[in-house]
Formats: sequence, structure tokens, C-alpha cells
Amino acid sequence: MDAVLRQSRAVCPFLKKASPSTLRALSTSSRPKSSPCGGTMSKLQLLANRCPVMGKALAVQSGKIGRVGLPAVAAVAGLRTVSSHAKTAKARIHTTSSQGARPVENYKSEKVRIPPAMPMKHHANARANAAPASVLKCPVEHGAKFNYEDFYNTELEKKHKDKSYRYFNNINRLAKEFPRAHMSNKEERVTVWCANDYLGMGRNRQVLEKMHETLEEYGAGAGGTRNISGHNKHAVDLEGMIAKLHAKESALVFSSCYVANDATLATLGSKMPECVILSDSLNHASMIQGIRHSGTKKIVFKHNDVADLEEKLAKLPLHVPKIIAFESVYSMCGSIGPIEAICDLADKYGAITFLDEVHAVGMYGPNGAGVAEHLDYEAHQQGRPRGTVMDRIDIITGTLGKAYGCVGGYIAGSHKLVDIIRSLAPGFIFTTSLPPATMAGAKASIEYQMEYMGDRRLQQLHTRAVKEALDARDIPVIPNPSHIIPILVGNAETAKMASDMLLQDYQIYVQSINYPTVPVGQERLRITPTPGHTKEFRDQLVQAIDDIWKKLNIKRTSDWAAEGGFIGVGEEGEVEPPLWTNEQLGISEAAHELEAQGKLEGSFMETILARQGND
Amino acid sequence: MDAVLRQSRAVCPFLKKASPSTLRALSTSSRPKSSPCGGTMSKLQLLANRCPVMGKALAVQSGKIGRVGLPAVAAVAGLRTVSSHAKTAKARIHTTSSQGARPVENYKSEKVRIPPAMPMKHHANARANAAPASVLKCPVEHGAKFNYEDFYNTELEKKHKDKSYRYFNNINRLAKEFPRAHMSNKEERVTVWCANDYLGMGRNRQVLEKMHETLEEYGAGAGGTRNISGHNKHAVDLEGMIAKLHAKESALVFSSCYVANDATLATLGSKMPECVILSDSLNHASMIQGIRHSGTKKIVFKHNDVADLEEKLAKLPLHVPKIIAFESVYSMCGSIGPIEAICDLADKYGAITFLDEVHAVGMYGPNGAGVAEHLDYEAHQQGRPRGTVMDRIDIITGTLGKAYGCVGGYIAGSHKLVDIIRSLAPGFIFTTSLPPATMAGAKASIEYQMEYMGDRRLQQLHTRAVKEALDARDIPVIPNPSHIIPILVGNAETAKMASDMLLQDYQIYVQSINYPTVPVGQERLRITPTPGHTKEFRDQLVQAIDDIWKKLNIKRTSDWAAEGGFIGVGEEGEVEPPLWTNEQLGISEAAHELEAQGKLEGSFMETILARQGND
Repeated sequence: MDAVLRQSRAVCPFLKKASPSTLRALSTSSRPKSSPCGGTMSKLQLLANRCPVMGKALAVQSGKIGRVGLPAVAAVAGLRTVSSHAKTAKARIHTTSSQGARPVENYKSEKVRIPPAMPMKHHANARANAAPASVLKCPVEHGAKFNYEDFYNTELEKKHKDKSYRYFNNINRLAKEFPRAHMSNKEERVTVWCANDYLGMGRNRQVLEKMHETLEEYGAGAGGTRNISGHNKHAVDLEGMIAKLHAKESALVFSSCYVANDATLATLGSKMPECVILSDSLNHASMIQGIRHSGTKKIVFKHNDVADLEEKLAKLPLHVPKIIAFESVYSMCGSIGPIEAICDLADKYGAITFLDEVHAVGMYGPNGAGVAEHLDYEAHQQGRPRGTVMDRIDIITGTLGKAYGCVGGYIAGSHKLVDIIRSLAPGFIFTTSLPPATMAGAKASIEYQMEYMGDRRLQQLHTRAVKEALDARDIPVIPNPSHIIPILVGNAETAKMASDMLLQDYQIYVQSINYPTVPVGQERLRITPTPGHTKEFRDQLVQAIDDIWKKLNIKRTSDWAAEGGFIGVGEEGEVEPPLWTNEQLGISEAAHELEAQGKLEGSFMETILARQGND
Repeated sequence: MDAVLRQSRAVCPFLKKASPSTLRALSTSSRPKSSPCGGTMSKLQLLANRCPVMGKALAVQSGKIGRVGLPAVAAVAGLRTVSSHAKTAKARIHTTSSQGARPVENYKSEKVRIPPAMPMKHHANARANAAPASVLKCPVEHGAKFNYEDFYNTELEKKHKDKSYRYFNNINRLAKEFPRAHMSNKEERVTVWCANDYLGMGRNRQVLEKMHETLEEYGAGAGGTRNISGHNKHAVDLEGMIAKLHAKESALVFSSCYVANDATLATLGSKMPECVILSDSLNHASMIQGIRHSGTKKIVFKHNDVADLEEKLAKLPLHVPKIIAFESVYSMCGSIGPIEAICDLADKYGAITFLDEVHAVGMYGPNGAGVAEHLDYEAHQQGRPRGTVMDRIDIITGTLGKAYGCVGGYIAGSHKLVDIIRSLAPGFIFTTSLPPATMAGAKASIEYQMEYMGDRRLQQLHTRAVKEALDARDIPVIPNPSHIIPILVGNAETAKMASDMLLQDYQIYVQSINYPTVPVGQERLRITPTPGHTKEFRDQLVQAIDDIWKKLNIKRTSDWAAEGGFIGVGEEGEVEPPLWTNEQLGISEAAHELEAQGKLEGSFMETILARQGND
């Protein structure tokens, strides 16, 4: 151990206690992957910044240029054998340049300047950084300025290198030709198979008429925040409708559900004393950010693992406030959260539940209120929400931008919960309201889906038909009980290639889903059928995928099975049945009949659809 | 000093070094006011949570229920004279209940349970908290669960008590009767005098036609994130138009400018190593949040104080990345940032500039690009942006929801800067795109304002006329060179009363602006004239305000002057001239003429407006 580390340990109880392996782990790993806005600091630097002693030393504060502490941390972080001759000792902290931190012997008092951590244009200036502290009073005359464009470039190159750089496709979804779209060239048509306008409500006549009308009467924008001239009957009516949909006392609309999740979790987490947020490991980025922004304690439980969640809950004192944050439909794999079991745990351990129904609202339940509603299908159909699973959820969040075809997000819950968020969340308070026409359109969409179940039923039938057809061709669909069809590719470049090929050769648009949206090695194509994806479209899709799987020699289900299976694909064991039962879909009779005939392997659903007169 | 504190000091170098007064300050003050999502922890608790030793002890982690450390912090925080008899010793940490933390002698090893920090329904359970550690393994059977509804209630009561609870007015702005609106009763008309649809673009025919057309062709929503089917020609065209407007290489559109500011500052601040963000003390909540979310160092400089900013910049090492974040028009007081001087400092000290032009875009400059453009009026009018102040700004952020009358926000800057934010900011990546019609409408609005200067000129003339008339009646307008008319009231209740009276008795809607939007004691009415506020409306407003000032006996400018003035009102010294000069407004000849006649005190602008044929 070098002198610097020894000295640091003498002052810092943390460094003293930590094992070399802990320090090594802290110094090499950057922030957790789950936080997409991670930053490039090592965890040790992060901890050091937060320490009132180290942090103060590290902080660039008025009156002090001395950066005591950092060299020590740097030395620890680098964990190199540092000689006592300071000038030759170097330790690198996430630097892409060849500059190193200069450890010092008496870091308690000596003011040192750490060298630039980023690539600089003027390497000639590097030497100036070793100058004594006295020169630091005129930083303009010495040393080089930070090169911002170089920094951006370096970061972008990283994205290119790890294949996570995103190329946007120019897709113009045509209301009158749903689910078709044109590319940048207006004549070039493609079929969209990956949009989240799951029910085609974006082109629904009732929604559009309401929007036209509201646009004429109330104009293009709200003209202010909710508090300053942006509160209107459209907001009141929409929030009333959402509260009714979820059978809650109250609701609140935000610019998006990203903002709703972020603002709500950040506000509750930061306001409730000692709050602990228990978060499903596959939670959406908006929730991860909200938890991070709350600054409170976060405990991640294994995806959909009730036993793991209970183990973690049981270890917490009963009296501390706890939020269990999870989703109903996980959008990238289509799995469904164990809502009722989580409600039970919440009751048992004194937690509240925060359920993101973003990919489920409009899609499940007799009123389209989501999976929580679907679980008590009959009760809700009969207008008896009390005591149901949905009733037990404390906070439901949803979007107006997916199945409802518009834009915006919301929360629903008790009067007081909603009022607290309305009163305290900056992301709600300090932003312009959604336009009147948007709110009116969204309300019309919710109403429509409360009245009419045909769209979501047909969506489910189409989903089943596509899953069945893909399965018949040994295409590796990640099994799930929802409306999402994730096809496993398992490699970023291949996934992009398959997506590009679908678009160019087959005029089918399915964006490839790569890291960081899914883990490396789990890259996939995510297919979202709609009521508009009729037989012709389905046949085209299945054929195109089969062709591409051949051309690119992508693993099929049987290949994965031969390897013992992977994330559900080719794995042994029972498959979870679809959430929408045959009975709920109104096809049980037809299904029984076909089953009795004992045939139609691979085209069961197509036969049922054809019989129903749907295609 | 009690035993606990003594013990804590033995372990913690921070506690050891800190003076009693520092500890007292840390333990009483909660998070800075400037952070609206503050939370109720004391700073000491916050620091303790961040310390790897204390934090670990405080953190509720799997496998450990012992909450070592906190009682010590609690004892320090309370700073009471704690007797050695632990059972009688109490120290309160932001608790509204009568429960206190129990300091322990050997806090290094003994596992103690801290009592609930929040009010509970079952006070009978309070005693259970003093139970020995052994019971903690079955938290369900002992102690009370956290009472969430009570907590919400307590927080809401605080808002009511300090008069910061917000009551929203139901204002339905009528496109065809601009600037009139109806209340919840459709027949009840009011004149809106506080919306941010500054130019009435929300009812502009070209904007509305473009929106209708796009709605029909492309539907109600985008149907996906920008990466997954939500990228389209509307986004490409709008971002191209914004880049052109600000003469930047690139632009990026967000759900709102709140999100744009938050996401951009959080991403840059967290990504750039050792980044320091220098923030004007009056910056908007979105910037404050973005800086907070970045987790990086923040230095606040005095509002518009270039000397203070330079002092702070000069103390920072040249090589560290720095972002100077500020606004052009500060919306609540109407002051204007010293943009050029800040650019000079940024150049000198190697910083980049982040300029929020939210309240200025559409309103200033020959193309409506904002104040930065306005500063080189002729150059931009002649299409020569290079080398101008606007050209020197690294990041410009703006909104589509105020002067442009729609909704959404954006950033503009270099290709690489924009690409970095596009590639890394979760608030951009993981959210549904704005609807095609919204983007098309916003683009039409920007184009319209690039072509036509009449609206913003007339807005300025109306602003001057109202300011002049209020001044003539000794109404205390906070002086500024912009289009904002802040009228000082100085008391939360009176401000709300004045606002309510305007609405009920005069059918004029001006929301009162109270804490936390403005500091306590600076409560105001914020008036925003538009081109639609013709003479009749102006006369009504000025008369109504004069009446109310009489009825409520609110201080006038002369009253403030008698007290030596306050935040510019009634203060001696030169008044900053309006940013729009007479020449730029095309009224210099008329003004000279009237001045030569040496009359028209108090109705100078009205005379000019009448002469121009405007009213």
C-alpha cells in the first residue's frame, strides 16, 4: 500500500474499513447500468464527492483551488503501486488522455491541481499542470481549456463502438392507411409493425373529430402552466375520466408518463422521511430516474420475484415508508407483474404500491383500465370496483400516447396523494399544460375504449395468430401472456441487420431493440400487432421473418433449446397462458370445436379469425 | 457535549472538525429553497446518508435492520444537552410527532430501532418502539405501519398554512375571442391578462390550418419514441426550422422545455468529468432540477451579476468543464440577462454557455429567435449570423408553448452537442414523441414569426402603453426592459385577494404569483399584454387595478419610494431602456414629434398607437 492510501486510511473510516477488493470494484465500475443517465465517474469518486470531508476537498469551491483529497482517491482508485517519488507516480481516473493524477505526500494541506481528465487539443499545455499552486490564481494564462467538442466526439465514438448508437428511421404513419406509413419519400410505403399505437386510436374518427373541434374553439396551445392560465375544462374533464377509468378518487395529467413517473417517485421518495423504494429490476427508465432523483434508498428486487421482494421487505422496519414500484406489462419482454401478490406484500409490510400500466391501459380489462382491472374482469364489468386488485393499488400511472393514440401521461390515486404531487412536483408545476385539443382527444379515446372492447379483443386475436405462426416456423418468440411479441436475436449487429433488411427488402418496419433498452446478448425485434394488421399483413410479416432468419442464419427456437434455452426461449416448463382467456375473447366455443377436430396445428387462430369474419 | 456526539466525533472526521454552530445550521435548515423538490431532511441527515460509513449504517439494507449511526446524528442534529440516561434523552429530527430518537452509548455495535418520524394513527404503538432489538425481526407483529394518508395531509396542511397552496382557476381561452376566455360556466367571460401565449399564435389561422391538415393525414399521436416509430418528417422539419432560427447546426425537440432543460443539464453535468455548473440565482426550476439531477457541482452566482460570476469563474481551474446556465428574459421580474458579457467570460475561462430563451423566442429579434438575436438586430436582419452574440452561445433552449402558441421544448447547438443529448438523455430517449400535428403547427408558427414582425412589435407597444398608464397611476411596476409587467404586492394573501377581486368584480384574469415561484414578501401580479389587448382592454385593466389598489390599500410606487424602494420599485437611479428601441418598433419619428410638443405625459404610447391606427 502506498503512502497516499495509507494516509487516506488514517483519516477516512471508510477507506480504513474497506478491503482492497472492494476498493478495486468501486474504482473500476461506473454507475449502475440501470441508470441510463449514468455518467462516467467511478463509484469511488462518487462516494468521495458525497463525503463531507473528501467532497469538500474535491469540490471546486469559491476561495479554494486546492483539490486535496482527490489524488488520494485517485491513488486508491488506480490501486497501482505508487512510489514515494510523487512526480513519477501516476494514477488514472477515467481519463482517456495520458495524463495522470499526481499523488502527494501531505494531501491534508498541500494545494495541488489535478491534471485535465479529458483529451485536450493542446498537449503542450499538459506540463503546465504540474506547476506549483501559486500559478493557479491565473488559470487563464496557464493550462488548456476543456475541449467540449472533443468530449462530445469521444462519447459518440463510444456509442458507435458498442453498437448502441441509434439511427432513427423516418416513419410517417398514415391515418387513412393504418398500419401503413411513408418514408422520407412520400411514395415509399412500409407496414409498421412496432408502433405503440396498439389499437389504432390515433386515427379513430371520434378522437380526431373531437380534436378538430377543440382546436377550432380553444386554439393550439394551453398558454400557460396549470397554475397560470393553463387549467381548463379539458384538464378537469380528462382527469375526471381517468379517475373514473381506474376507479380512483383523483387523477393528474402530465406532459408524458415519463414525467409522471419521474416526478411522482422523486417527490414521494424525497418527501417521505427515510422512504425506501423497492423497484423491479426490469422497471422502465422513467421510474429508475424518478427513484434516483428522489435521493432516497432504493432496493432492487428480482424481476417479478415475489419471494425476493418479500425477503427484502421483511428486513425493513415496519414503520418506514416504502414504495413498491413495478409495471403490469413489461414492454420489452411482455411479462406481466404479479400485481395481487405484490398488493398482499404491501399490506403485510406497510408499503404502498406504484403500478405503471403504461403498456396495458386501453388493452386489458372490460373498461380498458389495464391488467389490474383485468384480474377482476367480472367485478369491473358489473361496476363493482371496491375490493378488487385495482382498488388496492395506491398509485396507477398510465399514458395517453400508446393504446389511447395521443400524447401525455398521468397518475391516479387518492385525493390527497394526487394533491400532494400536484402541489409539490416541479415537473408538474413548472411546465406548460397539454393543449386543450390533446386533452379532449385523449378523453374521447378513453371513453371510446370504455364503451367498446372490439379493438383490444381483435388486437389479442391478431397477437395470438402471429405468435402461433412464428412458433410454427420455429422463430424464437420470448414467451409471455401479453400482447407483445419479442423475437430473440441475441446480437446487436444482427438485430439491426434484420431490421434494416425487413425495411429495405420487405417494406416492413420493425425497429431492432438493442442495449441499453435490453441487456447485451438479448437483442431482439419487438413486434406489436394491432387490429389493423389483417391476414395479408400477418402472412407477409411471418414469411419475411422466416426468410431473414434463413439469410442471416439466426438461431431458431430449436437451436436455443439445444443449448438449454435462454430467457424463456426453448426452455422446458409450462408456458403462462394468455391473460385474455378464450372466454373473455368470445372464442371459447369455436376453440372447443376446433380442438375437438384435433387439427389445425399452427393455424388455429387464423381459422378462428376467418370464422369470425375477421381477417 | 453529550456522549453520543463525543463518540461520533471520534469516528467521523467531519463531525470532529465541524463547529457547533455549523452543526446547528446543518441540522435545522432543510434543503435549499431554490430546489422546489426539496424534501424535508435536514442537511446533516443528507450528509450522513451520503457518507459511506454513516450512510451504510443509516441505509436500510438487506440483512441488516440495525440503524446504527442515526441516533448519533440525531443527537448532533438536535444539539440538546442529552443526559447520560438514554431513556430520557430525546432529539428530534424533523419530526412532527412527539417521538424522539433514542441515543445509545455504544452505537457502533448495538442495533437500535429508530422510532417513527411521522405522525401515526396509533399512538398506542409508540411504546413498542422502545422495545429491544430482538423484536425487530418480526416487524409485522410490532410497531405501526407508516400512515401515508396522514403524511399527505400534514404536507398539504403546511401548504395551506404558508399560503402556498395553489387553487387553479378554470380558464378556457377562446381562439375566436382572443384574449377572452370562459370560466367553468361557458357563458361567463373573462379577459386573460396573464397567459404566455404572448402573441396569440394559439389561434393563428396558418398554425391551426396546418394542424388540422396534419391531424387528418397523420393522426392524433406519434405512436412511439423517437427511436421506435416516433421519428418522422415533422420532427425532422421542425428541428431543421429551429436550427435555422437560431443559426445553429442542429436542434432537438422534447416534450417540453422543462424536460429539455432538465435532461440537457443533467446529462452534460453528469457526463463531463468534474463538471461545474454556474447558475444564475433566479434560474427556472427546470434548470435547478437539471443541475441537481446531474449530481455535479453547482455554483450559484448573483442574478445578472457579471462581476460575481467572474469572481467565481476565476477561482476554478481552467481545464475543468464549466457550464454557465442562465436565461435571457427572467419571466417573473422581466429582467434580461447580460448575454454578451457572459459570452466574454465563458471565452475567457473556458466555459460553455447554456441560455434559456423560453420567454424570449418569438418575441425578440428580427426573426423572433430571442434576445441573443435581438442584440445584433441588423446583422441578423441581413442574414449574417456569424460572430454575433447568438452565434457565440453554445446551447440555446426554447419553448414552442409560449409565444409560438403550441407545446413542446427544444435545444439548439452544434451537431455533436445535440447528438450527445439525443444519444444519452433518458428524458429524450424513453418518451413518446410529440404528435405530428403539434410539431407541424409549431413549425408553422416559427415560420410565421420569422416572416412577420407585426405581432411582436405590437405586443411591445401594448406593453409600453400599459406600463406607462400604470406608472401614471403610481402602481408599482417592477421596472424592466422586457415585455413582462410585474406589479409588486408584497404579501401572499393580498396578492391572492387582488387576483380574486380582479376575476370576480372585473372579469379580468391575472393569477397572483406567490412563493415558491417568487420569494416571500415579493408576491406580485404578473401581467402579459398581447397584440390582442386593445385599448378597451387596457383601459379596463388599468382602472380595475387602480380601484383594487385603493380598496385593498396596497402600497403604491410612492409608498415604496418613501421606504427607500424595494426590488427596483421606487428606487433611485436610471431605468434600463426597453430592449426594443423606438427605431426597431418603427415609432421613432412619431416619438420625436410628440416629444417636441412636450406633452402627453402618461398617454404618450396611447397617442402613438392611435396615430398608427392600432388601438
